[in-house]
Amino acid sequence: MYSLKELQRVVGEEIDNLRVGDEPDGLYEPIHYVLAIGGKRVRPALCLLAYQLFNTKDLSHEIIYPALGLEVFHNFTLLHDDVMDSADIRRNQPTVHAKWDANTAILSGDAMMIKAYQYMSMCPKESLPEVMGEFNKLALGVCEGQQYDMDFEHRNDVTVDEYLEMIRLKTSVLIAGSLKIGAIIGGASSEATNLLYEFGENIGIAFQLQDDYLDVYGDVATFGKRIGGDIVNNKKTFLLLKALQKAEGSLLEELEIWLNTTELNNSEKIEAVRVIYDKLSIRELSQSLMNEYFNKAIGALETINVERGLKEDLKNFAINLIDRAR
Amino acid sequence: MYSLKELQRVVGEEIDNLRVGDEPDGLYEPIHYVLAIGGKRVRPALCLLAYQLFNTKDLSHEIIYPALGLEVFHNFTLLHDDVMDSADIRRNQPTVHAKWDANTAILSGDAMMIKAYQYMSMCPKESLPEVMGEFNKLALGVCEGQQYDMDFEHRNDVTVDEYLEMIRLKTSVLIAGSLKIGAIIGGASSEATNLLYEFGENIGIAFQLQDDYLDVYGDVATFGKRIGGDIVNNKKTFLLLKALQKAEGSLLEELEIWLNTTELNNSEKIEAVRVIYDKLSIRELSQSLMNEYFNKAIGALETINVERGLKEDLKNFAINLIDRAR
Repeated sequence: MYSLKELQRVVGEEIDNLRVGDEPDGLYEPIHYVLAIGGKRVRPALCLLAYQLFNTKDLSHEIIYPALGLEVFHNFTLLHDDVMDSADIRRNQPTVHAKWDANTAILSGDAMMIKAYQYMSMCPKESLPEVMGEFNKLALGVCEGQQYDMDFEHRNDVTVDEYLEMIRLKTSVLIAGSLKIGAIIGGASSEATNLLYEFGENIGIAFQLQDDYLDVYGDVATFGKRIGGDIVNNKKTFLLLKALQKAEGSLLEELEIWLNTTELNNSEKIEAVRVIYDKLSIRELSQSLMNEYFNKAIGALETINVERGLKEDLKNFAINLIDRAR
Repeated sequence: MYSLKELQRVVGEEIDNLRVGDEPDGLYEPIHYVLAIGGKRVRPALCLLAYQLFNTKDLSHEIIYPALGLEVFHNFTLLHDDVMDSADIRRNQPTVHAKWDANTAILSGDAMMIKAYQYMSMCPKESLPEVMGEFNKLALGVCEGQQYDMDFEHRNDVTVDEYLEMIRLKTSVLIAGSLKIGAIIGGASSEATNLLYEFGENIGIAFQLQDDYLDVYGDVATFGKRIGGDIVNNKKTFLLLKALQKAEGSLLEELEIWLNTTELNNSEKIEAVRVIYDKLSIRELSQSLMNEYFNKAIGALETINVERGLKEDLKNFAINLIDRAR
């Protein structure tokens, strides 16, 4: 049995050696470029880890390729998202539409999605109907999440519940689906595959809530991103939406002034909004909701009927995801 | 057994009633818009016609939905192609990126492709591995064809063979794959499914060659498009590539002058290039190559081991496709 870290390394090597296609070069070169930029290969590694819970056979191409399909799909979503967000840099490298052009990014992205389906189809025949069902569901969910995210930018009445549903779709269903697909191919019972899905779904939401939190309260050195970016951009995170929901009277007015200010002094705005958040106990509410999802995730994991030791790595993964900056 | 025309009507009604999804509206409304614009529903109807060659059972959702998947996929390719070509009108209606915006067109297109896979996955379980294999192959082929087509715009050394390969990928593999998938679900032998593929592949190329021909030699009233558009735009069709290959000396110089002219008098250019084509017998060469593909298609169809009467509709379809303007 491989550890999560080992599986991430295995997947990384497989991706490095993957030739998704040869000609036309203009279609396939950008795909190899995107895949080579890297990333932690978390989703395929989770898929393999879930498979291992139920199947101790060596990792054959029937599980490796579906796992790679998840990574190819994830990178496809990043590729198209970057076009839609006009983001020119990802992981310190120029994005495809910046290096080539938007048409290249659109078409190479389309081909990546098809390649993801092709790799997914390499699972054992008897699992294919169920695997395809899950993959279609997660793929559509990610698109729906991206659409909600874009819609929210132009809306001023987004609720906390809508936000939670958006991050569930945009972030969690891919993690949850990756675990479930690994479990299905591993031959797990439907009870176990559903519990793994529940684990992934909740840990994904907890992760995003923690990400929102760290943007405001994190330590620059540990978190590795600039602090306060969401505040500067009026990003509708849990923190802001909860603050808008709770604030009243002069505090609400003050918050809205900061949201509408165009003469930007970033550090002043960050500090002022943080003070408002503190008055509304947003920090505590955010951590408490995050813990709620985290505990739901761990609860689902504990319930899965396999030897405790096998699940240790998934539990540690969950803890590390949340503990990034504590 | 339904005729091709009846099947087109059946598919049209199914598409009219299809709800691909509800929320978020911003994702699904453009999809319903695209599907409602219409079209002849040829690919799904061919899929059903191929199914009927081998299976006389009533059309259940296990064959109807995969057929709809082909139409959804086809419309997805049109949607993304229109973004890439900045084409604002299709079938006399504004395209999605013109009516909404490019981001909507990209993301709704992505969701359409996933829906196509979802409908495709509704085929009988025992056919799924083979159906997925064919669908992945045709989907990737269409992307490759589109990439070659875009590459050709910036190249001055495109050969006739490269052009034929491009139209095979961009046009034929979807027609051929639609027929083959119908036959697979219908329970045909692999010999028969391959012959149907060969029929579709060749008739698709013949169709595109005829389309190129009609742009120059067609009758406006019958063809329904403006004549000479390809000449005005220096489109690298079979006619132009063959002319560039055959022309020598002063005739080649003259052709190149017309290709490089920027002071455009369209009707003068169309007439002049047509005269050059005539001197090089491009008309005859084009018709002869088209007939070659047409005959290969019919040859493959004749070889399929089912009762002759059953194949009549496919044969008539092929003849009508080619005979549009004779």
